[in-house]
Amino acid sequence: MGIVLGPNRYGKAENRLLRVYRDTPRHEIRDLNVSTSLRGDFADAHVTGDQAKVLPTDTQKNTVFAFAKERRVGQIEEFALTLGRHFVDDIEPVDLARVDIEEFAWERIEVDGRGHDHSFVRTGPEVRTTAVTVESGAAWVVSGLKDLTVLKSTGSEFSGFLTDRYTTLPETWDRVLATSLEVQWRYGRLVVDWAVSYASVRAILLSRFATTRSMALQQSLWEMGRGVLEERPEVAEIRLSAPNRHHIAVDLTAFGLENPNEVFHATDRPYGVIRATAVRDDAPPAGPAWDV
Amino acid sequence: MGIVLGPNRYGKAENRLLRVYRDTPRHEIRDLNVSTSLRGDFADAHVTGDQAKVLPTDTQKNTVFAFAKERRVGQIEEFALTLGRHFVDDIEPVDLARVDIEEFAWERIEVDGRGHDHSFVRTGPEVRTTAVTVESGAAWVVSGLKDLTVLKSTGSEFSGFLTDRYTTLPETWDRVLATSLEVQWRYGRLVVDWAVSYASVRAILLSRFATTRSMALQQSLWEMGRGVLEERPEVAEIRLSAPNRHHIAVDLTAFGLENPNEVFHATDRPYGVIRATAVRDDAPPAGPAWDV
Amino acid sequence: MGIVLGPNRYGKAENRLLRVYRDTPRHEIRDLNVSTSLRGDFADAHVTGDQAKVLPTDTQKNTVFAFAKERRVGQIEEFALTLGRHFVDDIEPVDLARVDIEEFAWERIEVDGRGHDHSFVRTGPEVRTTAVTVESGAAWVVSGLKDLTVLKSTGSEFSGFLTDRYTTLPETWDRVLATSLEVQWRYGRLVVDWAVSYASVRAILLSRFATTRSMALQQSLWEMGRGVLEERPEVAEIRLSAPNRHHIAVDLTAFGLENPNEVFHATDRPYGVIRATAVRDDAPPAGPAWDV
Amino acid sequence: MGIVLGPNRYGKAENRLLRVYRDTPRHEIRDLNVSTSLRGDFADAHVTGDQAKVLPTDTQKNTVFAFAKERRVGQIEEFALTLGRHFVDDIEPVDLARVDIEEFAWERIEVDGRGHDHSFVRTGPEVRTTAVTVESGAAWVVSGLKDLTVLKSTGSEFSGFLTDRYTTLPETWDRVLATSLEVQWRYGRLVVDWAVSYASVRAILLSRFATTRSMALQQSLWEMGRGVLEERPEVAEIRLSAPNRHHIAVDLTAFGLENPNEVFHATDRPYGVIRATAVRDDAPPAGPAWDV
Repeated sequence: MGIVLGPNRYGKAENRLLRVYRDTPRHEIRDLNVSTSLRGDFADAHVTGDQAKVLPTDTQKNTVFAFAKERRVGQIEEFALTLGRHFVDDIEPVDLARVDIEEFAWERIEVDGRGHDHSFVRTGPEVRTTAVTVESGAAWVVSGLKDLTVLKSTGSEFSGFLTDRYTTLPETWDRVLATSLEVQWRYGRLVVDWAVSYASVRAILLSRFATTRSMALQQSLWEMGRGVLEERPEVAEIRLSAPNRHHIAVDLTAFGLENPNEVFHATDRPYGVIRATAVRDDAPPAGPAWDV
Repeated sequence: MGIVLGPNRYGKAENRLLRVYRDTPRHEIRDLNVSTSLRGDFADAHVTGDQAKVLPTDTQKNTVFAFAKERRVGQIEEFALTLGRHFVDDIEPVDLARVDIEEFAWERIEVDGRGHDHSFVRTGPEVRTTAVTVESGAAWVVSGLKDLTVLKSTGSEFSGFLTDRYTTLPETWDRVLATSLEVQWRYGRLVVDWAVSYASVRAILLSRFATTRSMALQQSLWEMGRGVLEERPEVAEIRLSAPNRHHIAVDLTAFGLENPNEVFHATDRPYGVIRATAVRDDAPPAGPAWDV
Repeated sequence: MGIVLGPNRYGKAENRLLRVYRDTPRHEIRDLNVSTSLRGDFADAHVTGDQAKVLPTDTQKNTVFAFAKERRVGQIEEFALTLGRHFVDDIEPVDLARVDIEEFAWERIEVDGRGHDHSFVRTGPEVRTTAVTVESGAAWVVSGLKDLTVLKSTGSEFSGFLTDRYTTLPETWDRVLATSLEVQWRYGRLVVDWAVSYASVRAILLSRFATTRSMALQQSLWEMGRGVLEERPEVAEIRLSAPNRHHIAVDLTAFGLENPNEVFHATDRPYGVIRATAVRDDAPPAGPAWDV
Repeated sequence: MGIVLGPNRYGKAENRLLRVYRDTPRHEIRDLNVSTSLRGDFADAHVTGDQAKVLPTDTQKNTVFAFAKERRVGQIEEFALTLGRHFVDDIEPVDLARVDIEEFAWERIEVDGRGHDHSFVRTGPEVRTTAVTVESGAAWVVSGLKDLTVLKSTGSEFSGFLTDRYTTLPETWDRVLATSLEVQWRYGRLVVDWAVSYASVRAILLSRFATTRSMALQQSLWEMGRGVLEERPEVAEIRLSAPNRHHIAVDLTAFGLENPNEVFHATDRPYGVIRATAVRDDAPPAGPAWDV
């Protein structure tokens, strides 16, 4: 019997980078949260304490900021690919790099009906994301969004479900359906108009959520995922995670009032969690598992 | 020497209310976080444990939901006034009520170029607020917003400041200025088009932030506050609180790179905090202090 | 009619300071979050943009770290007084300084039955606080704690309360009472053994919470506050704020089970909020109001 | 080309359960956050909207609370196994269940030198966790802890590391090392004294952290993980995730002060992230991957 070192990785998380493009008086900004993580020949760092193959996380941070100047940022998928390839190609002990980026959206402040040159206001709350994995000669891009919060005030039911002795939930054919979506979609190729693809996927998700008469959140997620795959050939697989933010119709009968689904209490916990994946049956294989 | 009961109050915080208006197939929704708090003749509840004059916080919660059905919600200022007046007028031991409401904004999901009838997506991140104080025969409305995050990529300087032996900050004539605004404005009267006033104050704050060449965040706040008072006669006083979210230009010289204000590290802590008030010299007096 | 600058202040919030005392191999550490805020002759900074009287918040930060070295830290009340007096006495335009400090508690890691010399583990979750206000020749110390979470599994009732048409809450003579305390106590003098006083107040709060048969959270707060004033002559006034973290006994009758207060659902929102003050009738006056 | 449903699961997250044992006047409490998640024959729920095989998440919630009464809670590993086996054995469409539990620690309030019968105070901040996966006839238990925050004020270095053109970090032979540990350990068997094992693993982690002269956080993690496997035969594998909470020695030379590692600025972001695994070379296989 022996004890061995298993999977390991290290990196620098949450480098908060603002990149300003000021080539003209009409500035552009990109507001990012960049995390890097490396795998490779790092057993000595753990087992003997020898750091000779370890590129400091501080250096990874410097690289993020230097590359933001040297190579510009572009779309977050491009920036993550550039960083990941650098670590794998240029740092000898590194076999695999993962770069995660969150992007926070801003729009120009409107002054006299026109967007201002260098003043901006945050929009949101949703956040655009990408997770790029790079090996020597290969790369995988999984982009996504989180905190996209949606609600239907009707057009949602939940009935005909399985019951057991612990079931007390009544069936309903009209309820509020609300969730805060976290979605990741894996691209089947690396030549993509990332900005167009992101905007289109987001619009499809919202539209399918709106137009699906929902038998359950499961069905809504499937329809949203299927819709993206139908309309966006560059996407190979999509995973959706959705907390079911329960809105409980308040019982007002004690006060002599009816409540035909007009007044709801929005609850925090517990909440349902539904996760589903839609995938092409000819999708290329996913990247290396990220199991630690 | 004796020990006496000083200021006290009690209430129900964070009633998360969703109100759906479904009089037509084109639904409207209002998503609120309502907190109530009462002052009055409650010494016995503390000192002897006698609860005979205490209206349970559970009842306050029920009242919020019942009123949402019975009286509808309207603008948050109206709803808060209605609730506050009820507690003061109808519950004998109550001398003073305060109702705080946060409103979360939603917009219709766009489907085929048109807003959907009953499907919505959260916008933000900013939150609209009101704090209404009611006494018998009197009321004060202080509305506001929070988490309105703004940034200027130029047009901001900080120079000519006081120095001492602990000062190392260099002067700058071009920096990034970023803050997450929390603003409250006190109305001088109770007959107001609340929705119009809110939208207008928000637009003025943004516009003045954008167009002020800023010598310091202090000056930006003053210009924003002054702008609101100049343009909105219904506002008697305005208070602005602004963390200075420092963006530090990264020193890239070690990598042979210049950084003419293009690459910044957005820091979390510490941050500056600037608070300022603009007030009319003939403003009516503020409401009772809320000193506990 | 004119528009004038009202109350204003500025400072540096959340300087995260770790002070290590390593005079001997047995190190001591103090882990603090220090915020400073200044009032004074700062109208020009707002109105004309002239910063000549403004000591930068960056300098305030430097002062915190430099004083931690030069003057050591000692108890947080001492460190706050030292910083506050420096700003008022040494920086000409400053009339009033407020210094807020949070202290995070650590204990030595136990190795072979003995606390280690230089390895520590965080305890908590409660946080010790102080808020010190300094004017020329005067100072006020308000210390406290927050996030002290307590629970009684019996010995708490709520009955005999006022009812109206919106009341549905049943009376109870046995319930779970849980809260996360936030307490501030104002000292009546400045010569105090701060560490002893803090530990003693904390112990009194806990003990009174435990031994009071509670007719309501109001009564528990009063007994806790009164207990501190009875036993700690250095304390002039004490304010307690307590969310009532409702624990709802789950109705298990549908499953053929009784639930004699054994199984509870701990709810998040809404929650009750109770605030109360106990004060000596001969307490010296409080410091300047902190009204912006 | 077709689009198919991939991995999916659903459940009820964050059931906040307080269990009071009141068989004698000396009460015991267990404060838990329980999440359940099910996999199985649920394709119809997604693809056709037919919910006939879906046990509602509301029923899962009811089951958690009912079992807390019927079967008592015991150690969190036992409670999770009981719940997981119920879902797999008794609910026909379920192939696999995962139950995650967080436990929050409380201790008795001390009154007159003795722990009170029914009054408690939260300790922390660390949280005990378990994640149990159950299939028909098999189960895997992965227990852990999170938010265990530790710091060494000396005995940590970082030198001899790899450098490239983006490296500016100086070597150091004496630094502050601080992290907030998140650790999971997989048990190799199901007959374990869970309480003893938890307490022992926690003590080993702390002790090894304290006594390891650290060449890097990597080495500290490895020594901690190895120590657990050496001393606890019931543990087959252990994974440690540790943010490197950087403490930067403040440069005080501008103020004429030396800073021999006495005054530090504790930073928030970015932070290093180190993850490592120690595993027995004869460890039994892990449970099914949890890949969505």
